[in-house]
Amino acid sequence: MSQPFASIDTPAVLIDLDRVEANLQRTQQHADAEGYKLRPHIKTHKLPRFALRQVELGAVGITVQKLGEAEVMADGGITNLLLPYNIIGERKLARLVALNARVTLAVTADSPDTVAGYAATFTADQPLTVLVECDTGAGRCGVQSPAQALALARQIDMAPGLSFGGLMTYPPKHDIAASNAWLSEAVNLIEQAGLPVPVVTSGNTPDMWSPAAAPVTERRPGTYIYFDRSQVASGVANLDDCALTVLATVVSRPNATRAVIDAGSKALTSDTLGMDGFGLIMGTDLTVTALSEEHGVINLPDASDWPRVGDRLRIIPNHACVVSNLYDSVNLVSGDDLVETVPVAARGRSD
Amino acid sequence: MSQPFASIDTPAVLIDLDRVEANLQRTQQHADAEGYKLRPHIKTHKLPRFALRQVELGAVGITVQKLGEAEVMADGGITNLLLPYNIIGERKLARLVALNARVTLAVTADSPDTVAGYAATFTADQPLTVLVECDTGAGRCGVQSPAQALALARQIDMAPGLSFGGLMTYPPKHDIAASNAWLSEAVNLIEQAGLPVPVVTSGNTPDMWSPAAAPVTERRPGTYIYFDRSQVASGVANLDDCALTVLATVVSRPNATRAVIDAGSKALTSDTLGMDGFGLIMGTDLTVTALSEEHGVINLPDASDWPRVGDRLRIIPNHACVVSNLYDSVNLVSGDDLVETVPVAARGRSD
Repeated sequence: MSQPFASIDTPAVLIDLDRVEANLQRTQQHADAEGYKLRPHIKTHKLPRFALRQVELGAVGITVQKLGEAEVMADGGITNLLLPYNIIGERKLARLVALNARVTLAVTADSPDTVAGYAATFTADQPLTVLVECDTGAGRCGVQSPAQALALARQIDMAPGLSFGGLMTYPPKHDIAASNAWLSEAVNLIEQAGLPVPVVTSGNTPDMWSPAAAPVTERRPGTYIYFDRSQVASGVANLDDCALTVLATVVSRPNATRAVIDAGSKALTSDTLGMDGFGLIMGTDLTVTALSEEHGVINLPDASDWPRVGDRLRIIPNHACVVSNLYDSVNLVSGDDLVETVPVAARGRSD
Repeated sequence: MSQPFASIDTPAVLIDLDRVEANLQRTQQHADAEGYKLRPHIKTHKLPRFALRQVELGAVGITVQKLGEAEVMADGGITNLLLPYNIIGERKLARLVALNARVTLAVTADSPDTVAGYAATFTADQPLTVLVECDTGAGRCGVQSPAQALALARQIDMAPGLSFGGLMTYPPKHDIAASNAWLSEAVNLIEQAGLPVPVVTSGNTPDMWSPAAAPVTERRPGTYIYFDRSQVASGVANLDDCALTVLATVVSRPNATRAVIDAGSKALTSDTLGMDGFGLIMGTDLTVTALSEEHGVINLPDASDWPRVGDRLRIIPNHACVVSNLYDSVNLVSGDDLVETVPVAARGRSD
């Protein structure tokens, strides 16, 4: 019996190159039409080749979430990186100096402590660009008010080795208007104080098709390269846009209504993102009902001979970004053909 | 300000060697006193050195969950392995033949299809030992009745290249007595049919301190080497037994009641195992309240200056096994001293 991708041992990640290219092009076209700069977040794919393609299509640069990811992407030929994170501690600051010497780099800060660390490390001959991170409602990092944003912008501007680069937010998913109002107030305050605000950068994929309202100049979507089940649920993509699937083998049919696959939480993660189940079986309405580390259980609604032991299924995961992070390599495919197996260069580089 | 483990970039895994040794010794002593064989599951640590130590202390061999893990452990010097999984497909069966030629190996089957694959692959000159996997209530893989166990044992026994090795179950956590009754009935049926049942092997850590009741001859706990927050909650360990922690740095203090660390779902996983929060801050009653991929949010019950930006915290995760699987290397420590940083040899070997 012929099985697709028979040369690949399961569980394994398949990346549909045609869907990737369509997702990248459509998003860049949206940015061009709406007049904002696109700075894709590579946390989703962690592959230098896709980052290079994003830049080739018109992205202003890329976004990385961790210093280790930035180093891998710089090694891969990316020359313009935003690292929207507070970089803390002597060892990381030393790595940051080395990185800043070889690429165009910007980081963020949300506290005087973080800025003080940057200020004590960088000098005017190779200054570091620092944006102020703003908590515009998401409740994670960020200064808590436009007045705090101004104070931090001033502290950055006064440090000889630092350059104030603008404002960054990871916005609340369901109140972009309030986030933009917050940012506008901060921009006004800072500009009234005589400081230009060259960049105002905001996430993220769930609001990617909305107009880019002022004062946002740049967006950092990530998941859009692959999309996933949660993005389909949020309405920004269709199932046919989903480019990342986990290939799994049915290893057990204990009874007529239960199938077990060789993909568990170490292959799909236990991220639910508020959804039922741990992934959708491609081409069906079935989900992975339960996970243990190396087993996924599929409860069938009716007694069925399908799927049989040995059948291969493709799972659209709830959350593509965390799945990429579990695999040393991914398989690039076109239709039912394996094109190439490539290492996930920035996998596990979260330090 | 001095910070412990300052030479380690965060997030990072710390393994307390003294606690590991105490956990290994105490568990082996329990097995010796209770008269069952211990076959530790290495899914938790994925390190050949700890597997070798488990065997040195008296374990009969080790348990692995995937073929890739078995290959790494064989490379690391382990000579007796149980792989309690249905191994399906030509490529994996070829790898299994190679592995069976160099170590003492047993696998499992729960269907005629799986046994047929083994039977068509192995020959009498290098036979494969196959145990029958039994679903004694956990609702995952396994034959559904003692009568099915007998039928599969017969199919194995009749194949020239296979040897019937006994019964295996992953038991339901809260009804070990029912599981043992199921197994006893199967053993009786199979023995009455003239087949010896050399091994009856059962998991797992949550019931590890209970007596090993007949007919179980062997147990396969895994998490006990490190324990974790969920095991403490289930009563089998104390917080002082937990050997694996995630070292994280406070990167943001947005306000008086919120701290953000650089460990998110890519450092701790989103496994809750039914608990509140995503890990316990060692030495406190605080938990990691919310995760995104590279951020962990800690909500403080009262306004507090502690922790400060730059402080390092150690997190006892909910589930140690899945955390090990995220890191290329772990840091072996004794007290506050770093002893050695070692690669997690079997990490990501889930195929």
